[in-house]
Amino acid sequence: MKLTQDIYSGSLSLLTDLYQLTMAYAYWKEGLAEKESVFNLFFRENPFGGGYTICCGLSYVIDFLGKLKFTTEDLDFIKTLQNQDGSTMFEDAFIDYLGNMEFCCSLDAIPEGKVVFPHEPLIRVQGPIIQGQLIESALLNMINYQSLVATKAARISEAAKGEQVLEFGLRRAQGIDGAISASRAAYIGGCTSTSNVLAGRLFGIPVSGTHAHSWVMTFDSELEAFSSYANALPDNCVFLIDTYDTLQGARNAIEVGKSLRARGKSLIGVRIDSGDLAYLSSKVRELLDQHGFHKTKIVASNNLDENIIASLKEQDAAIDVWGVGTKLVTAFDQPALGGVYKLSAIKHGDTWHYKIKLSEQAKKVNNPGIPQVRRFLSNGSFIADMIYDINSNIGTDHLMVDPIDHTRRKKISSKNMEYEDLLVPIFDSGKLVYKDPDIHSIRKRVRNELSCLDKSIKRFVNLHDYAVGLEKSLFEKKMALTLNLRKIK
Amino acid sequence: MKLTQDIYSGSLSLLTDLYQLTMAYAYWKEGLAEKESVFNLFFRENPFGGGYTICCGLSYVIDFLGKLKFTTEDLDFIKTLQNQDGSTMFEDAFIDYLGNMEFCCSLDAIPEGKVVFPHEPLIRVQGPIIQGQLIESALLNMINYQSLVATKAARISEAAKGEQVLEFGLRRAQGIDGAISASRAAYIGGCTSTSNVLAGRLFGIPVSGTHAHSWVMTFDSELEAFSSYANALPDNCVFLIDTYDTLQGARNAIEVGKSLRARGKSLIGVRIDSGDLAYLSSKVRELLDQHGFHKTKIVASNNLDENIIASLKEQDAAIDVWGVGTKLVTAFDQPALGGVYKLSAIKHGDTWHYKIKLSEQAKKVNNPGIPQVRRFLSNGSFIADMIYDINSNIGTDHLMVDPIDHTRRKKISSKNMEYEDLLVPIFDSGKLVYKDPDIHSIRKRVRNELSCLDKSIKRFVNLHDYAVGLEKSLFEKKMALTLNLRKIK
Repeated sequence: MKLTQDIYSGSLSLLTDLYQLTMAYAYWKEGLAEKESVFNLFFRENPFGGGYTICCGLSYVIDFLGKLKFTTEDLDFIKTLQNQDGSTMFEDAFIDYLGNMEFCCSLDAIPEGKVVFPHEPLIRVQGPIIQGQLIESALLNMINYQSLVATKAARISEAAKGEQVLEFGLRRAQGIDGAISASRAAYIGGCTSTSNVLAGRLFGIPVSGTHAHSWVMTFDSELEAFSSYANALPDNCVFLIDTYDTLQGARNAIEVGKSLRARGKSLIGVRIDSGDLAYLSSKVRELLDQHGFHKTKIVASNNLDENIIASLKEQDAAIDVWGVGTKLVTAFDQPALGGVYKLSAIKHGDTWHYKIKLSEQAKKVNNPGIPQVRRFLSNGSFIADMIYDINSNIGTDHLMVDPIDHTRRKKISSKNMEYEDLLVPIFDSGKLVYKDPDIHSIRKRVRNELSCLDKSIKRFVNLHDYAVGLEKSLFEKKMALTLNLRKIK
Repeated sequence: MKLTQDIYSGSLSLLTDLYQLTMAYAYWKEGLAEKESVFNLFFRENPFGGGYTICCGLSYVIDFLGKLKFTTEDLDFIKTLQNQDGSTMFEDAFIDYLGNMEFCCSLDAIPEGKVVFPHEPLIRVQGPIIQGQLIESALLNMINYQSLVATKAARISEAAKGEQVLEFGLRRAQGIDGAISASRAAYIGGCTSTSNVLAGRLFGIPVSGTHAHSWVMTFDSELEAFSSYANALPDNCVFLIDTYDTLQGARNAIEVGKSLRARGKSLIGVRIDSGDLAYLSSKVRELLDQHGFHKTKIVASNNLDENIIASLKEQDAAIDVWGVGTKLVTAFDQPALGGVYKLSAIKHGDTWHYKIKLSEQAKKVNNPGIPQVRRFLSNGSFIADMIYDINSNIGTDHLMVDPIDHTRRKKISSKNMEYEDLLVPIFDSGKLVYKDPDIHSIRKRVRNELSCLDKSIKRFVNLHDYAVGLEKSLFEKKMALTLNLRKIK
């Protein structure tokens, strides 16, 4: 697969926040650069008020880390950086150190397309603290956004109940890659195709599209416009019928549809892009059916999202295909996931020191240690996820504690139940050990994962929280660390 | 300047919606490909409920169009495209046509950094309809997003009343370029610096940043962490003081600040990233002042936007520098501008035919013709903008008509008043005729432009609409076209 390497020519090693470089320098200066440490990437709330999140973006991360190397051009730029007083920010020896740096961390991650929940580490990085630190910003950028869009697409696809969803957000997306990576994540999340031809080429996503209002406006009449289009592309006729008047547009489409039929071709569809979609789609369906166009599909678009689609479904709108753009690719109602990346352990000598950051809000206190996530299943359904420390001897009978409400606890067993540990090795001491699945497999995985979730977790309102807890010994470590830190204030 | 050419290696010519290609094919098949036509890019509402928009993204457009050329790889991909029935979508002769296509449109645009308003053409493209059509999606992508972020940054900078605003949105931005182009637009809109090192290298934007919570967590105590940082980077000390307890953090910073002072260095600042910023900043200011650190700046961050900054200012928060991330780079409260690109004229023989698209909403009916925007000034203040057709003889005494409420009209004169025509030539028949200003000049232009706007237009609530009208003869043409189309339904 070609990802960032195909999209970006130059080095992306500077795709980082300056404070990562200043901290890297300070680690290096203080002789701490190579200290072994653990960082975790996680988020604290499911987006869109929903009950789950789809993990996405790991392919980009793999590509980025595989090529992580400061080029001469990168280093030359770093040399120019100055403090506020005009002094040089970094010593030359540090710049040489960066130039010689080879990525050697071990990275475990939850594969793309898996369903994930708040507080679970999506990525765990273990290795020299300087490297774990330098890659933070890029990893967050890639995982935050793609997981957000994949989740939005999954919700939209759930609302569409298996009907086709076309993604065409390019024109409103946030930047070039905001479009390209959105098309990727949207397809993974469940969309059927993208309008973005470049995304189609880069990722092998099906592309779709027919014509715009401008095509109709080019001609003196809509009928002439449809006829001309049918003449040029008789096998690709989905007419946009709302340039002037939707119902008249449907009549014009039908007229051209009849001539297509006479030529052995078919009127594949009509698209409505404005107005009352529930009313218009029903009226258009009637007209189409009256003239025997029972197979002609009605495509609807215009600021659709999962809520509007669900509402149109409830109103029995006669819509067969859903076109979704802005609301999907910008994740309009919540345009950022808010994932974070926190230090959770650092090794002094042979001893791991577990780390947390305090906060007044309990949900903002990170989990310490070297976490793994164990997902328990029963009859193919996901029952609960337990976050545990890989260095703890957790046995087979577990007590899970809710990380926010400590009184909510659940007994669960690795002896009697099926389970899966979600984080899998991606890089082992800098070496790629993971075979990235193709995009179509990842997409299928999403559908499969969602089928394992109870519908009370998937619905849009009054949903149940999926059970995610800390294994008791991890919970106790976190409590002890928190109390200790609060005391030493 | 290096923009997309530096960021993207491969061809961006496929950065388009498939329907642009199918329409291009249909134009070509019908012998219409070379018909001269006019397209306009405009938006219908200022974002964020505000009174103005900052035009941004043209540099990307110039770069993109200057390199627009279908490569063999692009063409090979287009050849693979199929209709739903599995038939080949495009004839080989069309693919050859695309391969030989040279961009030859004329493009006029409002320069970056100018204040613009709804319904004004930001870009006007004139040339073969096939080319005008093919570039639509990329132009919208680049202009929509960058204008959105530049506007957000301008609003935030206005709220900060000249104080420094640091942009650090990389980790939450929508994709790699969603971060990079956001840093560019944010700087243009008024931010002082970015944390994004790659954006710094690509665009020459100042970069800033010091350390994160993880630095503090690396050490056994916060005091030790600050001391070590000061040891490594004595000229770059802005300590993040809220890892455990903000006020204790301030005391620790002060202690290390004293040792910096003893070494002839200074404690540049402290940063607060959580909690009640109004209360904490005042308390921290008191502590700093008590120990003679009057010049030490307080940096605040944590989901800031223009409204929160304005509120903190009202509460007399002791904040000197504002760090803004997610809310800025994702334009959180309105993550898409909604700009559109519409055909407004097409030439048959020697005669221009003016075009509109109808809509039930008056504001969605585009303006026909070949528009220019004339901005009238008085004593250095912007008074009104008049959209007129460059082929009309408009004389010097004008009547402007509000495009929505036709009873609102305004007399204005090009004889007695200073004015400026906003659209300037960028490409002349495919040849670049515009010298792109450097990013710092564009940024200065924004401040200058905003100083020409009455404050009633810039405030966040109960604002006045800036007067934008159609020159009477253009208004009349639009009315006639609309009535004519409504009749022929």
